[in-house]
Amino acid sequence: MIDSFLMIGQSNMAGRGYTKEVPPIFDEHIKMQRNGLWQIMSEPINFDRPSAGVGLAASFAASWRMDNPQHEIGLIPCADGGTSLDDWAVTGALFENAISQSRLAQRTSTIKGILWHQGESDCSPEKANQYQEKLSVIIDVLRKELHIQEVPLIIGGLGDYLADGIFGPYFTSYPLINKDLEDFAQTTKNCYFVTAKGLTPNPDHIHFNALSQRILGVRYYKAFRDLQHIPVPLNDEEGVLAKIYNRPYTKTEKIKLLEHEFALGIIESKDYLDHLTALNQG
Amino acid sequence: MIDSFLMIGQSNMAGRGYTKEVPPIFDEHIKMQRNGLWQIMSEPINFDRPSAGVGLAASFAASWRMDNPQHEIGLIPCADGGTSLDDWAVTGALFENAISQSRLAQRTSTIKGILWHQGESDCSPEKANQYQEKLSVIIDVLRKELHIQEVPLIIGGLGDYLADGIFGPYFTSYPLINKDLEDFAQTTKNCYFVTAKGLTPNPDHIHFNALSQRILGVRYYKAFRDLQHIPVPLNDEEGVLAKIYNRPYTKTEKIKLLEHEFALGIIESKDYLDHLTALNQG
Repeated sequence: MIDSFLMIGQSNMAGRGYTKEVPPIFDEHIKMQRNGLWQIMSEPINFDRPSAGVGLAASFAASWRMDNPQHEIGLIPCADGGTSLDDWAVTGALFENAISQSRLAQRTSTIKGILWHQGESDCSPEKANQYQEKLSVIIDVLRKELHIQEVPLIIGGLGDYLADGIFGPYFTSYPLINKDLEDFAQTTKNCYFVTAKGLTPNPDHIHFNALSQRILGVRYYKAFRDLQHIPVPLNDEEGVLAKIYNRPYTKTEKIKLLEHEFALGIIESKDYLDHLTALNQG
Repeated sequence: MIDSFLMIGQSNMAGRGYTKEVPPIFDEHIKMQRNGLWQIMSEPINFDRPSAGVGLAASFAASWRMDNPQHEIGLIPCADGGTSLDDWAVTGALFENAISQSRLAQRTSTIKGILWHQGESDCSPEKANQYQEKLSVIIDVLRKELHIQEVPLIIGGLGDYLADGIFGPYFTSYPLINKDLEDFAQTTKNCYFVTAKGLTPNPDHIHFNALSQRILGVRYYKAFRDLQHIPVPLNDEEGVLAKIYNRPYTKTEKIKLLEHEFALGIIESKDYLDHLTALNQG
């Protein structure tokens, strides 16, 4: 049975890091949901927009795998860029999509956690004032409908760069949302807050860059594993990432990567067959 | 209200054409479903695998738009690579995913047609023998569950190149499936067959290349519009594509493309703002 995790929220949960900026994470035992079935994970996991890229879920899953070398993890991507808490309201399309995708995942996995990152689209004093109450309703109904009342909910802070870029004026209230998220986690059972301190953006100053997403995923996993808030950056974030990147590929992974190269026309059929033969003999 | 179309089947419905090989199709009134909501279409529409690319749905939609210049079309991507008819059985995950995604689409659209392309994974004499009966059950239940009994179902043939490539031995029975598809369409109400004659593959000799997918989409639309089988290639396929490609972008489309370039870091913030100002003044 796969241990699965639901990804919900807006663009920084979906992921907008540039894939070319970080080493890939590819592990035959990390799956992602596609059309109700499990496929080996590759990024972008949560393809909500053409700009989808690296998110926090890949390094979260890879961190989980280091503690669970004999088990499989599955990611259920349901985050959607630019969406507010009102867009996520119960009975809305985003909510119902997350429910139906989760139920499909529950046929062959056990949901072990909920990963949430959202708030950029609620950056106003009025909306910040209602944030905790709205989030509480969404999460409560979600937990009940999926029968996952007790699993950890991990929620991350917004980037401290938000007010600086060309869209800065839209985000001046971001510290109010960060306080909401932290307060919500402090007062809600099975909920843990993860800081975004020190993380840096793409040139748009809205989205975490790829390295920051990798680091955020490591923090999310630490919160999940230890059932504790992560109010400050961890000591060994880059070290954890180095361990993840240094994991050697299995034979199955090498074959899958070779198939992918051939499917994309990067290598010709003769080279494909030669390499495949070598891998199968190796 | 959007007119929507359900995309089901395996990889050649999802699309594996290389995007760099054909001009893009981008039209603010062609939407695709993401997380239960509508987004402006861009390829890959049906991101089932990392190798997803150009499929037939984009040129199908662009052809539809030439006849419906005042209306919007929405694509519901539910196709999944490598899947057999047994994988698509009623109550299976693929079937239920297509049902739940379609129901979300029906909140804000009317499903006007079903686009099916599948059969490569059923290329054996035994499976070919059961193909029509299995497909009939799947389509009947799908139509009933979604209350779309009367909408056209368009089904396309398999590529005549299938037996030639390095995977050729798996596909020697493909003519049996093509006969099944043609017979099924002839004997099933509201079902039309589209030939794949003349279409060519990627180097893998499994997947239609990008130009062939564009042509196939034009044929699918002709079958849908005229409610007739397309047993031979059309006379003016490349001409239709030229018209599609020559459509000038609207201001909204230019702004969306500019936003995308900035999101991907292709242009810097100063250039983004300068171009945006120019577009808004133009």
